[in-house]
Amino acid sequence: MKRIAVFTSGGDAPGMNACIRAVVRTAVYHGIEVYGIMRGYSGMIKGEFVKLDSASVSNTVQRGGTILKSARSQKFMTKEGRQQAYDQLMNNGIEGLIAIGGNGTFTGATLFEQEFGIPTVGAPGTIDNDLFGTDYTIGYDTAVNTALEAIDKIRDTADSHDRCFFIEVMGRDSGYIAIPCAIGGGAEIVMVPETQMSTEAVIDTLREGWKRSKTSFIVIVAEGEVEGNVHEVAKRVKAAIPQLDTRVTIVGHIQRGGSPTAADRLLSSQIGIAAVEGLVNGMRNVMAGIVDKKLVYTPFADTISKKKLINQSFMRMVEILNS
Amino acid sequence: MKRIAVFTSGGDAPGMNACIRAVVRTAVYHGIEVYGIMRGYSGMIKGEFVKLDSASVSNTVQRGGTILKSARSQKFMTKEGRQQAYDQLMNNGIEGLIAIGGNGTFTGATLFEQEFGIPTVGAPGTIDNDLFGTDYTIGYDTAVNTALEAIDKIRDTADSHDRCFFIEVMGRDSGYIAIPCAIGGGAEIVMVPETQMSTEAVIDTLREGWKRSKTSFIVIVAEGEVEGNVHEVAKRVKAAIPQLDTRVTIVGHIQRGGSPTAADRLLSSQIGIAAVEGLVNGMRNVMAGIVDKKLVYTPFADTISKKKLINQSFMRMVEILNS
Amino acid sequence: MKRIAVFTSGGDAPGMNACIRAVVRTAVYHGIEVYGIMRGYSGMIKGEFVKLDSASVSNTVQRGGTILKSARSQKFMTKEGRQQAYDQLMNNGIEGLIAIGGNGTFTGATLFEQEFGIPTVGAPGTIDNDLFGTDYTIGYDTAVNTALEAIDKIRDTADSHDRCFFIEVMGRDSGYIAIPCAIGGGAEIVMVPETQMSTEAVIDTLREGWKRSKTSFIVIVAEGEVEGNVHEVAKRVKAAIPQLDTRVTIVGHIQRGGSPTAADRLLSSQIGIAAVEGLVNGMRNVMAGIVDKKLVYTPFADTISKKKLINQSFMRMVEILNS
Amino acid sequence: MKRIAVFTSGGDAPGMNACIRAVVRTAVYHGIEVYGIMRGYSGMIKGEFVKLDSASVSNTVQRGGTILKSARSQKFMTKEGRQQAYDQLMNNGIEGLIAIGGNGTFTGATLFEQEFGIPTVGAPGTIDNDLFGTDYTIGYDTAVNTALEAIDKIRDTADSHDRCFFIEVMGRDSGYIAIPCAIGGGAEIVMVPETQMSTEAVIDTLREGWKRSKTSFIVIVAEGEVEGNVHEVAKRVKAAIPQLDTRVTIVGHIQRGGSPTAADRLLSSQIGIAAVEGLVNGMRNVMAGIVDKKLVYTPFADTISKKKLINQSFMRMVEILNS
Repeated sequence: MKRIAVFTSGGDAPGMNACIRAVVRTAVYHGIEVYGIMRGYSGMIKGEFVKLDSASVSNTVQRGGTILKSARSQKFMTKEGRQQAYDQLMNNGIEGLIAIGGNGTFTGATLFEQEFGIPTVGAPGTIDNDLFGTDYTIGYDTAVNTALEAIDKIRDTADSHDRCFFIEVMGRDSGYIAIPCAIGGGAEIVMVPETQMSTEAVIDTLREGWKRSKTSFIVIVAEGEVEGNVHEVAKRVKAAIPQLDTRVTIVGHIQRGGSPTAADRLLSSQIGIAAVEGLVNGMRNVMAGIVDKKLVYTPFADTISKKKLINQSFMRMVEILNS
Repeated sequence: MKRIAVFTSGGDAPGMNACIRAVVRTAVYHGIEVYGIMRGYSGMIKGEFVKLDSASVSNTVQRGGTILKSARSQKFMTKEGRQQAYDQLMNNGIEGLIAIGGNGTFTGATLFEQEFGIPTVGAPGTIDNDLFGTDYTIGYDTAVNTALEAIDKIRDTADSHDRCFFIEVMGRDSGYIAIPCAIGGGAEIVMVPETQMSTEAVIDTLREGWKRSKTSFIVIVAEGEVEGNVHEVAKRVKAAIPQLDTRVTIVGHIQRGGSPTAADRLLSSQIGIAAVEGLVNGMRNVMAGIVDKKLVYTPFADTISKKKLINQSFMRMVEILNS
Repeated sequence: MKRIAVFTSGGDAPGMNACIRAVVRTAVYHGIEVYGIMRGYSGMIKGEFVKLDSASVSNTVQRGGTILKSARSQKFMTKEGRQQAYDQLMNNGIEGLIAIGGNGTFTGATLFEQEFGIPTVGAPGTIDNDLFGTDYTIGYDTAVNTALEAIDKIRDTADSHDRCFFIEVMGRDSGYIAIPCAIGGGAEIVMVPETQMSTEAVIDTLREGWKRSKTSFIVIVAEGEVEGNVHEVAKRVKAAIPQLDTRVTIVGHIQRGGSPTAADRLLSSQIGIAAVEGLVNGMRNVMAGIVDKKLVYTPFADTISKKKLINQSFMRMVEILNS
Repeated sequence: MKRIAVFTSGGDAPGMNACIRAVVRTAVYHGIEVYGIMRGYSGMIKGEFVKLDSASVSNTVQRGGTILKSARSQKFMTKEGRQQAYDQLMNNGIEGLIAIGGNGTFTGATLFEQEFGIPTVGAPGTIDNDLFGTDYTIGYDTAVNTALEAIDKIRDTADSHDRCFFIEVMGRDSGYIAIPCAIGGGAEIVMVPETQMSTEAVIDTLREGWKRSKTSFIVIVAEGEVEGNVHEVAKRVKAAIPQLDTRVTIVGHIQRGGSPTAADRLLSSQIGIAAVEGLVNGMRNVMAGIVDKKLVYTPFADTISKKKLINQSFMRMVEILNS
């Protein structure tokens, strides 16, 4: 393999640049040319390719976002779009791809490989940590720390005013972000999709705390929990316990940005190196990940179909720590 | 004066603890006893007094929130409530008060002084910086930095995805928080109450940027701007320029919390010292502030009735920096 | 077991308070009384015991340092000292101990158990991550992030002035802190005890970079590396390559402080819960740790005698990423 | 004036990029071409000029360091060097300069203007805040906050171990950085050049604190204080009070880096705009600054010869707050 290309796709995540840097430097180390594709599949179709060398990625390891930008592409979901993407790659002599993204990205890459034979190795780039095949995804550790810093600040106000804050954090359909935020943020309650906690149960716990003369509370609400959104939950709680001074905060998009943590930079670098070396060694349709400190390559078919379950003991921890 | 008390009232602000610490240490320095009143006027009425000494405020200068807690009190707005507060103060031998808060707090203190003769010196404790009589209020610098850090993170995503973000920051009826956020956050547009910018003008500026092939934008929206809330503005912009990928984020309550910045700790300490020394020297119904690096005491009547105008040159700066 | 005590010993580490909180809340959850011992073994000998309940540890999860303080005790290394400690525990009805510390702490606990039969379960509290029996120690993740933030700031200056910075980070006899700092900080070189890199090799790498017209460099030096201290290394490099503008920075004690990261709060909480539950279930002379996401109890004899080896692939990563 | 150039010189400071951005955007706003000169006077002599436009400075406002790099130039101190610099400027059609730096930079600019008539307007870029003609210099607020965050972390350890920390902060010959660090960091003592405090006085204060059973102390030492360096002071204190557990930390180069604070971004932007508009309006040999919220232009002769005195009341504050 003489020339490869790297791109980022889906929601951006802190550490994507560290991963791009590792991909580029590893290619250079092995004497392989490397291009960056701007805006994911969209740029692949349009031929937005940039030649990258070691200097291109200097001073990027600490940057949030992605220097290659990201976009969603409807067109790549059509045969015609993929044909155009293939032509562009051929015109530029690109023989293999590194895709930094999530399952949507990997689904596209699988189809593309089946149709046109271009091999892709994936890197798990999403703050949500909901990908099978790696203990942690790129950006997850940073997102949790960002959310936790927000919660720390909000607790200052919660304590000062004897308030009950409902704080929504990201995580799509999983509690991966919400649970460490609850444990680390000293929250009394955490609502995550996995446990389907009812608003009634929330009300019971708050009532019981109130009886023990607790006056400030933090309830962490994962965006994918089942009881409707955070505003609805807060409203129903307020209706049930009017003496509570309730407030709602949505941590929001700040969770996707910021300089990556040490753990995210290390993980992104490990995975970036592994992705290139896997691709060069003939792998295709696999995602590089780290499981129990070991490098593993998981077929896209598995990252897409299998579900990574959250550690059940974490739910018990929230209960114990609220004693 | 042998015994004074300090309390915090209204919304909490970073630096309130630094100010309490300065009040306590200054009292100790001058051989005066000092009590803390919990939960503002509400605790004054209920007699929630705590004796404070130097050690009570050790290791608090860097803490957000207020160790004396804050609350709003309907009862203090009645004559009966103020009578009870007065009785509590008398029972505890308290001869003067330091009130850390805003105009609501000072209005109550003025009335209280007129009726019962208890002198109060105020400290400007609010993140909004909308108090006449001081260049900056306690908590303002921290709130701006917190908002700006959020904007920095969001810009990572805005740039990576070519998006237009509408970011709401706090500030009640003024653009004091929004404007430095716009200048320091590299925003293209800032909507503040002072200029009454129309949504049409926002649309025009974004359209023009789009023509210059700008693809990511940040619009800072002060919570008190006139065009309805941030969601409405974003909706109307999206309707007018459908190709824009718009997103809304509300920075929210994190702006009230967090460890105070150096400037806020210094200001809080200066004002805390000044407030005690003013009270001891016979002042009453005045707020201690810093204007042009000098300590000034401004009558509550003026802090309440006069408006501190925002530097008009700042609006021109946003325009120039968006060139 | 009806009453236990918890203490911190050795150097303080971020997350110790989160661990103390978990210990206390878990004891409360299981209906066990819990005392805090101030200043480690020194306070045990003097009887500095404090009864703790849930409220005692409110709002501490995010605090650096240790609310129980830490100290070294020469006296506990004598039989007489341990006898006094035993008497104090007996007088207070304490039946088991949770020791948060490192191998020095566990050595003392082992001896104490052999002589007096008081069971101890340990928690790995040290920023150095050099304890066998756990993937990560309490405080390690925070220390690495703190060091990395310092390196990020220094790189601003290194780049702006075309300088070569030698930055010493902590880690005693291991490169656990230095290596992720080098990978995540974009350093060209890392000197750690494990590889015994000579100053000559450092000079060679810098010379080669200089030839490739690189002008700014970062060399991370672990405090325990073999070539003398960071100042000596820098001096010898400067003598060999006079055109390099060299500077030395020692990150120092800031690495021990600060609010713990999300990972450290989670780990500290897991371990605190596990330590209490292990003690209650009859364990003694073991340290609770997390290895490959699973809770494990490792005999103190092993944590003391066995060495946890650093992932060898990390050294290769530094080389690749410097391509 | 049709074409101007901007450069940074002397030690780098956070906010320099925000200032460069403001210079560039203001030039664009007024229809003036603008070049960046790399590496200060050194690059001016070598002709290292880069054309800048609005996009060149996108996404730089939040970056530490200087994108134009900085260097010291011996050659510019010779007539021959300045002749070469002049020739380079002429060859590139540059009619005026914006110099971001300190008094060394302004001295060079003054000489250059006298000899060759090239007008320069200066911007105060130094973390030390020791320039007459502006209340604050670019980078000062960030440096103080960085130092303060370091002190906050160290206090965790100081408190946990009952230690006495001697912490050296930057500031050359002034206490501008040290004093807010002492006030905001809860330090017991501050040694600055302005007061020439003797080590004996330090010892007396610590002894007195020890008698009041204080056990942890922080002494802030400005780098330019008169009693020798921080290590010597600590050694003499330890000799006098052996029971103190003393430690020394030098905050060091991290104070020059990092993302600028809101105040620094605002100040840098104001000054950058003012510098260009001053130059265009015919000013020369003046520095733009902000004094008491107003824009002022101060002759280089004054910024160089006059001394900005530190607010004397700050010294008294440290004493009061240590009560």
